[in-house]
Parts: sequence; structure tokens; C-alpha cells
Amino acid sequence: MGISRIRVAVVGYGNVGAYVLQAVRSAPDMDLVALVRRTADRPPELPADVPVVRELPSDPPADVAVLAVPSRLVPETAERYLARGIRTVDSFDIHEEIPDVRARLERVARASGTVAVLAAGWDPGTDSVIRVLFEAMAPAGTTFTNFGPGMSMGHSTAVRAIPGVDDAVSLTLPLGFGKHRRLVYVRLAADGDPDAVRRAILTDPYFAHDPTDVVFVDDVSPYRDMGHGVQLERKGVSAGAHNQRFSLRMSVHNPALTAQVLVAAARAAMRQAPGAYTLPEIPPIDLLPGDRPSIIRRLV
Amino acid sequence: MGISRIRVAVVGYGNVGAYVLQAVRSAPDMDLVALVRRTADRPPELPADVPVVRELPSDPPADVAVLAVPSRLVPETAERYLARGIRTVDSFDIHEEIPDVRARLERVARASGTVAVLAAGWDPGTDSVIRVLFEAMAPAGTTFTNFGPGMSMGHSTAVRAIPGVDDAVSLTLPLGFGKHRRLVYVRLAADGDPDAVRRAILTDPYFAHDPTDVVFVDDVSPYRDMGHGVQLERKGVSAGAHNQRFSLRMSVHNPALTAQVLVAAARAAMRQAPGAYTLPEIPPIDLLPGDRPSIIRRLV
Repeated sequence: MGISRIRVAVVGYGNVGAYVLQAVRSAPDMDLVALVRRTADRPPELPADVPVVRELPSDPPADVAVLAVPSRLVPETAERYLARGIRTVDSFDIHEEIPDVRARLERVARASGTVAVLAAGWDPGTDSVIRVLFEAMAPAGTTFTNFGPGMSMGHSTAVRAIPGVDDAVSLTLPLGFGKHRRLVYVRLAADGDPDAVRRAILTDPYFAHDPTDVVFVDDVSPYRDMGHGVQLERKGVSAGAHNQRFSLRMSVHNPALTAQVLVAAARAAMRQAPGAYTLPEIPPIDLLPGDRPSIIRRLV
Repeated sequence: MGISRIRVAVVGYGNVGAYVLQAVRSAPDMDLVALVRRTADRPPELPADVPVVRELPSDPPADVAVLAVPSRLVPETAERYLARGIRTVDSFDIHEEIPDVRARLERVARASGTVAVLAAGWDPGTDSVIRVLFEAMAPAGTTFTNFGPGMSMGHSTAVRAIPGVDDAVSLTLPLGFGKHRRLVYVRLAADGDPDAVRRAILTDPYFAHDPTDVVFVDDVSPYRDMGHGVQLERKGVSAGAHNQRFSLRMSVHNPALTAQVLVAAARAAMRQAPGAYTLPEIPPIDLLPGDRPSIIRRLV
């Protein structure tokens, strides 16, 4: 290809981070240069020549940092790397805050001549691309996004951050036509107050819009299944023709898909002009390795 | 938006062209400046102030020409408009020739500082975007494209161009896992030789790869139904997790969807740097009217 390999640093080693490591290592055009985490503990699957560090050193340099950190830590973490001239990708998933985070990262990315790709998981992320595409195909109509049944990583992480919670699993149950119920299994900490915890969950922005059941259990692990799904449906009008029907269905390992999309977005980050981008703002072909003519020959 | 309205010329008034007129007229950001066709006949639905012309005049100027002409006429027609500095969009649908047509239009578009968007229907077109996206989401695996059952406009047009054919309808029947059968209803011309016509169909590049049945009938109109469908399926591996399943299904009015995608691509053509682009090379957000922050707020 005549293009040098992409040097990737992975920041975070939670559910998503572990899969990001795998996706980077199986990418044909990437080298893993460092794993950044709070502890210096070394994951057994990490090759011996990849350092585990608390702060990313300048040498070896990284072209792009994949931020596998909780959404609430994304903006400040991204700004820190962008200010150093290192591209970032993240899967920030608080939908209503995306425009503000984008504006914030845009400023830093432009000032330092680098690129941020944000909200680059599967929803927000690839689902966002499909929603945009469906609307272009039928400008009048309605799109419904139906999640689950499956465990939501973002919602589970949000509950675990609530004082008094020891562990939590939040399931998303589709009610149809874009409505969902949340079923949250919570193991309380020793000093946890169930009423305060329940109240904190029901008023959290992640849960405030949906009917939510909170169930206290001694052990959440029997409910932990990383499988998830989505159905995106649009019924609309194309050029005066009504009842155009589009439907996307997925059944996936959730953190693995998030990780894979992040790594594809890291590749795309190498190919954009300075600035901050959500996935629908990026040419999809930039997500794939290889040169355009051969991708076009295979897939267009 | 602070952006002037897009002046669109529509070239051709066949199955697709009639729907392109509708889609342009219902676009909030476009004005229809002319219909270009071989005859000066005036379609009844055309507003009185839109001229019907054989050649697009320089005044009023057009920003973009939507080429609703048969695929075989696309390359030379596009080159003619591009050389005049007018952007073009087309739904050229002979998959294996797309890389060459793209290279050809790229030369002219760059030389005259304008933009060509090619192969911008639903397949090739929006399906191509989905195939690229599915591969980014699961780099290892297999994608199957299953068409139909439905009438293929490209195949029907190809048969009608064969000497000795008066009229034809070509149905695409899915055999599963990306294989198809073609069922072609043909009304012969008075001097048509059935053996020669059958031979010409079976050796045409549109049909050479699929089992094809040719049926001669007195009237093809009972077989003419513009409904069509597709199922795109991928089963693959994301970040080491196997059995990721993605499926897109559509049930659509075929020429209306092609027309709507062409019109969305005409909008995107206004927003690209000079050159030639297939749909996966364009940020999907550029297909929609309006500014990025408000689209992101609604759909990301």
C-alpha cells in the first residue's frame, strides 16, 4: 500500500479494552505500541514487547489512542491526548451530550492539527450511519431503534458508579417501536441503602426516560451475558412511493463489536482532515484497510 | 443554513427520471431548472416554468445534473456534463465496470474542477455502503447479497436493447446465499428471431453468470411490478467474537428508491472536493439536507 503501519495505543482494559487489544492485533495494518491503564498489571495475552504504562510516553510515538474508558471520562481523556497531537477514538454513548462533546473535541483537535472520532461504537456509531442512510433513502417516515434483549454496558457501568452499589447488570428489553424497559440487577455494597440506590438509578440520565425495574440480588453474575441485539426499522416515502420498508437486525457480542468499530474508526482517523467527527461524517470506505480501487472492486 | 439552493437538471425521463423529478421537487433545498430529454415532449406533472430541452443551456445554470439514462450511456453522458463544469450523479449498475468508469470520470472531473458521484442507486449504492460497514464491523466472515423476487430495471433495459426484442421484463429470483435465477419475459419484435434473442440474452454480461430462463409472451405488462427487495447478510468475527450476525432487509418500489438515492447523492456532490466518488467514499451525513449539528442531534 505504500502507507506506513498505524501505531495504536489502547487506553483502558475493561470489557471493551480487552477486545480492542484483540482487534488491533488482528488488523493487517496496525501495530500495538502500548496499553495505558491505572495499574501496571500486565494482561496475560499482551505480547512481551508491548509496554503497560500509566501515561503514554512520547517514545515510541502513537498515531492514535483508542479510548476504552467509561463514557463520563471520555471528554477530558480525549482532550488530554488531542492536546499532545495524538488522534483519539472513543465510544462515548450518552446520545444527548454528543453534540457538545463533539464541539469540545473539535476545538482541541483543530488547535493541535489532529483528529478525534467520537461516539464510534455500534449505537451511537454504526447504527447512526444506518439511521442517516435510511433517512436519505426515504426522507419522509419514521425510524424506530429497538434494542435488546441484552445487557447494556453503558447502563451497567453507570449503575456501578452509584455510591452504595457493589456490582450491577442492566438489561435492555425492547417494548417495540423504539420503547424499552430496563431491568437492573444490583448487588449492594455493605453500606448500600436500597432506597437511595433505587432513587439514584431512576433519576440517572441513562434511565430517566424509560420504565425501570431495580432488583436487588446477592450475585449479579448469573445475569451477565454479553450478547445483545438491535432492530432498526424505517417505513417511509421515497420519491413519492410510500411504504418503503428498511430493517437492520443484528445479534452480536456487544463489547467485541464496540471494540471492532473503535479499531476501524482508528484507521479512519488517520485519513481525515483535522477536526472532530461522528461516524456518519466519515466516508465508510475509510474504515477498511487497503486501497480504494480494490475495496470498490470487491464491495461496491 | 446560509447556503444557496441547489439547481438541479434531470437528464432522461424513463422509469427512474419520472421519480427523480418528484424527489427533486420535494427536496427542501433544491430547485429543478430543466428536464433534458431526446424529445421535447412535456410531462404533465412538470411545473410550467421548468423548460424541457434537448441540450442543457448555460442559462439558467445547473449545479448538478442527475443522469437518469441507461447505464451504457452513463460514461459518455457524464463526461460531457463534467467537461462543462457541471456535477453529475448516476446510478450506473454494471458492477464489474465501476472501477474503470470511476477512473474515467475522475480524470474529467478533476480536470474541470467538478464532482461526479457514480453508481449511486441502491445496488450498487446504499447496499455498497452497508457491505462496507458490515465488513468494518466483522472483518472476517462472508456477506451474501440476495435480491428479489422483483423486476430488475437494469436487466430489463439490457434485454430491450437486444435486436429483435420489442419489450421485456426480467425478474430476479433469490436462490439463497447470494445466488440468483433470472426469469425473462420477452415480447419479440415482428422480425425477431427467438433463437438469436435467447442466445443474445444468455451471453449478455448482465446474464452470463446466472441460470436464466427466457419465456416468449405476447404481452409483458402482466409481469411488470416495480416492487423489489434485497437481503444483505453477514456472519463474521468482531475482535475475536464469532457468530456476529448482521442482516439488512428492504422491500421497496425500485425506481423510486433509485431516484431518491440519486437526489441525495446530488446534494452530497455539492459538498465534495473535485473528483469521482462511489457512495461508500462519501460521508453519509452529506446525503441529508441541513447542518451537521442538527442532524447529529437527531440521528447519531
